[in-house]
Amino acid sequence: MASWLSIPKNSPFSLANIPFGIISASSSKVPAIAIGDYALDLNAFASSGGFSQLPSIQQHLSVFNQPTLNAFAELGRPVHRQVREYLQNVFRADTQYPQVLKDNAALQKSALIPRSQVTNHVPMQIGDYTDFYAGLNHAYNIGVLFRGKDNALQPNYKHLPVAYHGRASSVVPSGTPLHRPSGQILANPTADPKIPTFSPCKKLDIELELAAFISKPNELGKPVSIDEAEDHIFGLVLMNDWSARDIQAWEYVPLGPFNAKNFGTTITPWVVLIDALEPFRAQGIEPGNRDGLLPYLREKRAETAYEIPLEVEVTNKGGQPTIISNSNARNLLYSFPQMVAHHTITGCNLRSGDLLGSGTISGTEPKTQGSFLEQTNGKTAIKLADGSERMFLEDGDTVVLRGLAGTEGNYVGFGDCTGTILPPVSF
Amino acid sequence: MASWLSIPKNSPFSLANIPFGIISASSSKVPAIAIGDYALDLNAFASSGGFSQLPSIQQHLSVFNQPTLNAFAELGRPVHRQVREYLQNVFRADTQYPQVLKDNAALQKSALIPRSQVTNHVPMQIGDYTDFYAGLNHAYNIGVLFRGKDNALQPNYKHLPVAYHGRASSVVPSGTPLHRPSGQILANPTADPKIPTFSPCKKLDIELELAAFISKPNELGKPVSIDEAEDHIFGLVLMNDWSARDIQAWEYVPLGPFNAKNFGTTITPWVVLIDALEPFRAQGIEPGNRDGLLPYLREKRAETAYEIPLEVEVTNKGGQPTIISNSNARNLLYSFPQMVAHHTITGCNLRSGDLLGSGTISGTEPKTQGSFLEQTNGKTAIKLADGSERMFLEDGDTVVLRGLAGTEGNYVGFGDCTGTILPPVSF
Repeated sequence: MASWLSIPKNSPFSLANIPFGIISASSSKVPAIAIGDYALDLNAFASSGGFSQLPSIQQHLSVFNQPTLNAFAELGRPVHRQVREYLQNVFRADTQYPQVLKDNAALQKSALIPRSQVTNHVPMQIGDYTDFYAGLNHAYNIGVLFRGKDNALQPNYKHLPVAYHGRASSVVPSGTPLHRPSGQILANPTADPKIPTFSPCKKLDIELELAAFISKPNELGKPVSIDEAEDHIFGLVLMNDWSARDIQAWEYVPLGPFNAKNFGTTITPWVVLIDALEPFRAQGIEPGNRDGLLPYLREKRAETAYEIPLEVEVTNKGGQPTIISNSNARNLLYSFPQMVAHHTITGCNLRSGDLLGSGTISGTEPKTQGSFLEQTNGKTAIKLADGSERMFLEDGDTVVLRGLAGTEGNYVGFGDCTGTILPPVSF
Repeated sequence: MASWLSIPKNSPFSLANIPFGIISASSSKVPAIAIGDYALDLNAFASSGGFSQLPSIQQHLSVFNQPTLNAFAELGRPVHRQVREYLQNVFRADTQYPQVLKDNAALQKSALIPRSQVTNHVPMQIGDYTDFYAGLNHAYNIGVLFRGKDNALQPNYKHLPVAYHGRASSVVPSGTPLHRPSGQILANPTADPKIPTFSPCKKLDIELELAAFISKPNELGKPVSIDEAEDHIFGLVLMNDWSARDIQAWEYVPLGPFNAKNFGTTITPWVVLIDALEPFRAQGIEPGNRDGLLPYLREKRAETAYEIPLEVEVTNKGGQPTIISNSNARNLLYSFPQMVAHHTITGCNLRSGDLLGSGTISGTEPKTQGSFLEQTNGKTAIKLADGSERMFLEDGDTVVLRGLAGTEGNYVGFGDCTGTILPPVSF
């Protein structure tokens, strides 16, 4: 698809994408889409008649005058699809509606804003954030470190998508710097008795994840069936689930990670609609309809993963960037619809804006892991382009996650998921 | 304190209490207080000049025209204190302001509503719900069941308040019935390999807890010190953290409970302000300033627990109620301010309306435990008054938690925390 707008060939936001987000430029927070180097302010667009050629959205235009995408998401997938396809039409070189934007200099001036001039925000009001553990290779790698090869995967792992509730308040948009957390760590893990010390985290790590935003809610007591689950998913973002490994090692028994994860979780601000990812469906590590899965988790089709190449880049204080890992979204054992079906099987209610993380997405080869812990095991340092070495993150390090499906000129990507580590706060 | 209003001597809502909640009667949700058998509609009260004798609240009256208590809570503890003391004054037999309500039949008629005629709601918009594990005896009892007496408590237990993130969306007000959840359980836990079956939960349990609502938020990256922590707490409620033990046993490794807890958590709808509980301060199992605690957790004073007798009642289908347990809030090893200090030590931000559960509050003697699992260990049944026996809950069972501090005529209580188990939904 060619556009009358100049879109760089390497842009993650080609005409094939049309991701939705929340921006602020001169004024308040408004919904927008990203296209090439621009954001289209949907509040300005809608209030100037930009949707005049899409009759079905007329009764819902107030969703574009909101500080979050929750109201738009709640309209449901058929509406998201119509709006995305309409906006693709508006931007196409051979648009059916040239009068809407292509030949409308005034609306271009008021609604089409260079992305370098906008601030991005967390796109939805997140009710609850759940983090799954669906990256099979990550679960295996971590299991080997803690329990050895023979017991690496717990007996439940291939029967259900393991998950824990995460912290919604500290989900931040890409670009937000985070202080290195402090807390209790065991300086000497083999001492008896075990006496913790108070310290800044010394094993600060990342986790490369995808995450889904929920669109359509379900009522308490009404599970979502696997066949309907995808229609409850609005779209995906990239996510860095920052992890303090030494705090985690001391605190996590018996109820799981808490302070090790609650100080910040970074997401890309543009939600890539589930329909935009449809062309990249692929079979994952195992098919979504594999034998052995209980019926409530069994998908109708085998291809329930996505072919999305992923990368992790680390840079210290403006130095030379180093790609430390290349992975792929195919490394997930469970699909997002399977996560929705499992999450709700007890009757748990999901709300519009709830966030479901995939778990860390690692490959099986060297330099394909989605965390430092897996790559270094605290023993084998990662070498950066500036000659320095890393077991874990240092203050001043900037981490960028990227994910880009498709081919040049037609990329469907997430943009950069960026975070920089600031020194610990003083006590 | 005597009131001109007739307040039953056994009411948990004496003049010494003045808890805040959200009610709806004929119209929309509004803030209210409970007093005796009545609710005072604070929207009607404020809009008819009820607060005319409290000058400091005049600029904030809009907080009483909201569907949640978040805005009122955010005003901070000094304001909560002034409003509570003013309302106590208004209701006192020797009130300084008889014209406000005592001698104002019109306002009594419009704002003072029999509680039997109102619907209660979850009083705050809960951003995140965190559940701690601060009940020492519960942690010990569960530890004995899983790991034996010698390793019952994990090494971290006496150094930090263990916690996990819970599910906010399914927190419901007292009186909301819940379906027995279904999910994966191990019908034969000793078989090899372990193959789960899909089933309604067969080990449905309760957990007797207190929970704190957060008033004043803290910014991301700004920990709350132990000395300031209490001023971030709005007040307490009773909480039943329903637990599906068989689902939990299969799913919980390695990241903690998830589906076993996400189908419903019941709270009392009236928030007892932290100031109302001040007279019931007591030393808990160990002092809040005990040696060995890291400084960020050490309270200035020893008396950081509360003397609040608690009870658990079970009734099947309108039969005769049975008190199956009597416990006390003194059984918590950590105080709510310690929980706030620990939660935020990494820089995690708490928001107004966040809910912090205490963990199950059990005693050390028979019939003082806050869960069926501890009382029965799946072996020794609890006998109910109707002659039937329980290892865990049956369909049709109604559980009521109660907590009542103080003495007759001056009780500071929470009211009933009630839930009835409905049959599982059909698949």
